[in-house]
Amino acid sequence: MQTFFVDMAVRDYECDLQGVVNNAVYQNYTEHARHEFLKHRGLDFAALTASGLHVMVIRAELDYLRSLRSGDVFRVSVQTERVSRLRMAFVQQITLLPQGTPILNARFVVAAVNAQGRPCFPEQLEHLL
Amino acid sequence: MQTFFVDMAVRDYECDLQGVVNNAVYQNYTEHARHEFLKHRGLDFAALTASGLHVMVIRAELDYLRSLRSGDVFRVSVQTERVSRLRMAFVQQITLLPQGTPILNARFVVAAVNAQGRPCFPEQLEHLL
Amino acid sequence: MQTFFVDMAVRDYECDLQGVVNNAVYQNYTEHARHEFLKHRGLDFAALTASGLHVMVIRAELDYLRSLRSGDVFRVSVQTERVSRLRMAFVQQITLLPQGTPILNARFVVAAVNAQGRPCFPEQLEHLL
Amino acid sequence: MQTFFVDMAVRDYECDLQGVVNNAVYQNYTEHARHEFLKHRGLDFAALTASGLHVMVIRAELDYLRSLRSGDVFRVSVQTERVSRLRMAFVQQITLLPQGTPILNARFVVAAVNAQGRPCFPEQLEHLL
Repeated sequence: MQTFFVDMAVRDYECDLQGVVNNAVYQNYTEHARHEFLKHRGLDFAALTASGLHVMVIRAELDYLRSLRSGDVFRVSVQTERVSRLRMAFVQQITLLPQGTPILNARFVVAAVNAQGRPCFPEQLEHLL
Repeated sequence: MQTFFVDMAVRDYECDLQGVVNNAVYQNYTEHARHEFLKHRGLDFAALTASGLHVMVIRAELDYLRSLRSGDVFRVSVQTERVSRLRMAFVQQITLLPQGTPILNARFVVAAVNAQGRPCFPEQLEHLL
Repeated sequence: MQTFFVDMAVRDYECDLQGVVNNAVYQNYTEHARHEFLKHRGLDFAALTASGLHVMVIRAELDYLRSLRSGDVFRVSVQTERVSRLRMAFVQQITLLPQGTPILNARFVVAAVNAQGRPCFPEQLEHLL
Repeated sequence: MQTFFVDMAVRDYECDLQGVVNNAVYQNYTEHARHEFLKHRGLDFAALTASGLHVMVIRAELDYLRSLRSGDVFRVSVQTERVSRLRMAFVQQITLLPQGTPILNARFVVAAVNAQGRPCFPEQLEHLL
C-alpha cells in the first residue's frame, strides 16, 4: 500500500510561549491527515454513524523527536495496521520539509462498537488495511 | 438586570509567541461566558434548534485594551441589549482580577431564522433581555 | 495594489457542535493570512520587535455572512488601508472556493508603540499601505 | 505524596462535530494541570530556561476511556514518577465529577538538556518526585 500524506504549514497561533508548536497541536495535525485519508479512501463516516456504528480512538502514542516552529512546512503520513481481531491502528509520522527530518512518530489505536454497544470490526475498517 | 459573569484563568497553551493570550482566544472566553449565561437563564439551545429555530452571531466587535498573560485570572461579564426589531446583542467585558483592570470590550450581534429560513426573533431571546 | 490571498481548507477539529467552523477560528484564519502577507511583503517582525517597536491589533470587526463546514476550501484575502495618522487596518474577506461565495468580512485595526511606550507609526507599516 | 489535581469544566468550543471533546483537547487539559502543579511546587520555569536548561515532553500516551461532553465538570490529577536515570514522567488521570468516572489515563515522559545540549536531569526535576 502506498503511504498517504498531507503537506501542511505551521500557523503562528499554533506556537506557544516557547516559540514552538504546542504538543497538543500535533494531534490536530495527525487527526486532519487521518480524516483526509478516510475521505481519500472513500470512507463515509456520516453513513457509518447513521448505520449505528461508532468508531473511536481508544489510545494515542506520540513520540516527540524535534519541534516544529513558525514558518515550517511539514508532511504528515498515514499508514494502517491490524492490531487485533477488533482493533486497528493508524501509524503516522511528521517530517520537516524539504529534507524529511523526523519530527513526530505517532500511533492511534481505533476500535468500534455497533448499535447495541458491542465491540465490532466493521467491513469499512477492513477496507482501510 | 444584574450583570452575569464567569471567572477564568489563562491556560499557557492559549498564549502565543509574543507571550500573551492570542487575539482569537478572547472569542473562546466570551463564547464560553455567553453559553454559561444562557444555561443560567434556562435557555435550552437543543430544544430551540429542535423546534427549527437557528440562532447565530452575525457580527463581532472586539476592542483589545490590554493583553492577558500566563497566570492571569480574569472576569468575563455578559449583558444583553436589543439592537433592532430582529436583533439583539451580547455586550461583554473582560477585566483582570483582582483589580478589575479593563482588558477587552466586545459586542456580539445575534440574529435568528425560523424553520422556513425567514428572519425572526423568538420569544426565548426576548427573555434574555 | 494587488490583493494578497491564501487558500486554506477547513480541518474537522475546527468545527463545533453545530457542525460549522467555530466563530473564533475565523480569527485564526485571518491572522494566518495576515502573517503570510507580512512575510510576503518582507516585514521582519522579530527585527521590528527587537528595535523596540510593538505592533498590535487594537480592534477586530467580523461580519459572519455564511458558515464554513467540514470539507470546505476557502480563500482569505488581505488588503490594507490607512485609518488615521497613527493607525492602519487590515481589510480581509473569506470566500468559499471555487464559486467565491462571501463567508466573512473582517477589519483589524492596528496600532504601534515605540520603546518608550509612546504611540507611533513606524516606516515598516507605511510600506504595507 | 498527595495527588495534585485541578477541577475544570468543558467549554463548548472544545467539542467537535461528534458532540464530544476533541481528542487533542485532553492534551490541553493535562498540560494546564501540569503547569498548575509546577507552579504549586514552586518550579520557576523561566528561571530554569534562563539558566540554560531545557525541559520537554518526549513521549505522550493517552488512553481514552470515555468522552467528555458539553456541560461536564471534571478533575485532572497529576502524579510524578522516575522513569530512568535521565527521565521522569507525569502520570495523569481525568475523572468525571462528581462520581469520579474514569475518562482518561495519560502518561507524559519528560527529558531535559543542558546549555551544551547534553541530556541531564536537573535538581529542580528531582524535587518534583
